[in-house]
Amino acid sequence: MTRNLKLTIEYDGTHYHGWQRQKADATVQEAIETALFTMTRKPVTLIGSGRTDAGVHARGQIANFRTDSRIDPRSFQKGLNSLLNDDIAIQDCSEGPPDFHARYDAIAKTYQYRILNRTIPTAIDRHFSWHIRCPLDVTAMQTAMKHIIGRHDFKSFEGGGSNKPNTVREVKATTICEGNNGIVVLEIKADGFLRYMVRNITGTLVDVGTGKLSPDAIPGILEGRDRALASPTAPPQGLFLMSVEY
Amino acid sequence: MTRNLKLTIEYDGTHYHGWQRQKADATVQEAIETALFTMTRKPVTLIGSGRTDAGVHARGQIANFRTDSRIDPRSFQKGLNSLLNDDIAIQDCSEGPPDFHARYDAIAKTYQYRILNRTIPTAIDRHFSWHIRCPLDVTAMQTAMKHIIGRHDFKSFEGGGSNKPNTVREVKATTICEGNNGIVVLEIKADGFLRYMVRNITGTLVDVGTGKLSPDAIPGILEGRDRALASPTAPPQGLFLMSVEY
Repeated sequence: MTRNLKLTIEYDGTHYHGWQRQKADATVQEAIETALFTMTRKPVTLIGSGRTDAGVHARGQIANFRTDSRIDPRSFQKGLNSLLNDDIAIQDCSEGPPDFHARYDAIAKTYQYRILNRTIPTAIDRHFSWHIRCPLDVTAMQTAMKHIIGRHDFKSFEGGGSNKPNTVREVKATTICEGNNGIVVLEIKADGFLRYMVRNITGTLVDVGTGKLSPDAIPGILEGRDRALASPTAPPQGLFLMSVEY
Repeated sequence: MTRNLKLTIEYDGTHYHGWQRQKADATVQEAIETALFTMTRKPVTLIGSGRTDAGVHARGQIANFRTDSRIDPRSFQKGLNSLLNDDIAIQDCSEGPPDFHARYDAIAKTYQYRILNRTIPTAIDRHFSWHIRCPLDVTAMQTAMKHIIGRHDFKSFEGGGSNKPNTVREVKATTICEGNNGIVVLEIKADGFLRYMVRNITGTLVDVGTGKLSPDAIPGILEGRDRALASPTAPPQGLFLMSVEY
């Protein structure tokens, strides 16, 4: 009997070329598929909720795979965690409904972006934050962030090379929090994301925070539907896929 | 004229065999001394506030060195940061008084120990916390922690191989905080620390947290002056030297 298993996956993306299997480079999908092949002795296709780019991390990526194996979910989790490098940790494995599809069935995802805003350099947080020396006006960033909530055409925040026919997405919730030692954490929940969307929004909000852009420039950037209107892409290492809702 | 310069250093200790220079292995002291040699063209001895063990991190290690070089402090900081691997970051460089000595003049140090207390495995925090699956009673740990405040003989918490004549230290302040997602953070400030002292205290507090030891066992462990009375040493990757007071 073919079963459909669902994985919840945390990964430190520092040393991976993103989620999606590639010809030559190490990816998270490939690492897990290889471990599943070792366990089941059959080729397995892992369907992720979506790609994450090179250097991006996940605390709650979701994926599913079909298998004839009789290995129980708990043994899959244990076996995978012992086979995988310790920069990938299977948080959970459970039996899914036969038709569950990690990508098609996702109704919302939440991403977090971590900024380290201080003049002094950093060693410990270097793989998990974007270090910005220039002081950020977080209140202005909060004002700007409010303009992206709701249903908008996010074409201006879509990375080059992607050509999705529909660039309208609904941002359901956003937060920006300031923590100790200069940590600024952005969170965005949406029904879907375009390529580089969170990193392009973050780059633009940082330009608001440094005073380069007015918080009220955001509606015009959205309406313009032109990538050139928004700011440069924030680097990957500050970004975390936090959770996926079904 | 010989100057005396003071450095504030952050490091990710994951790939170092601790602070102190060794014959064969990579250490933080050696890395910085090598970079100082490159900058000044003369051998430089760097005096740290104290050793940190292999795999232990620092957010605020302090060190000083004497030099005849005329390079100004800001250029030393910039030069070192460009020469060093990005797992060491010089936070500050300043001119010190001629007789400043990073080890002898230290009057207090603060260490932090990070525990990740949750059943699910971790990838992202693996180099910066001790992962404990068994649920911890943090209130019991707080009660136990109170017993170590003050002036005590910490012989029972001293690592083997060390034979300091005086094992009396004064713990000036302690905190234990629970954060999100199972993070438990211990902080201990003392006028000095014995080898493995924070890690042995942490290991013992964790045994209190899991119910193996009563919080009221601590005074007896202190009075016994016997390492065998305390619990196993906590692993290095959860430990951070936070700051040194002068």
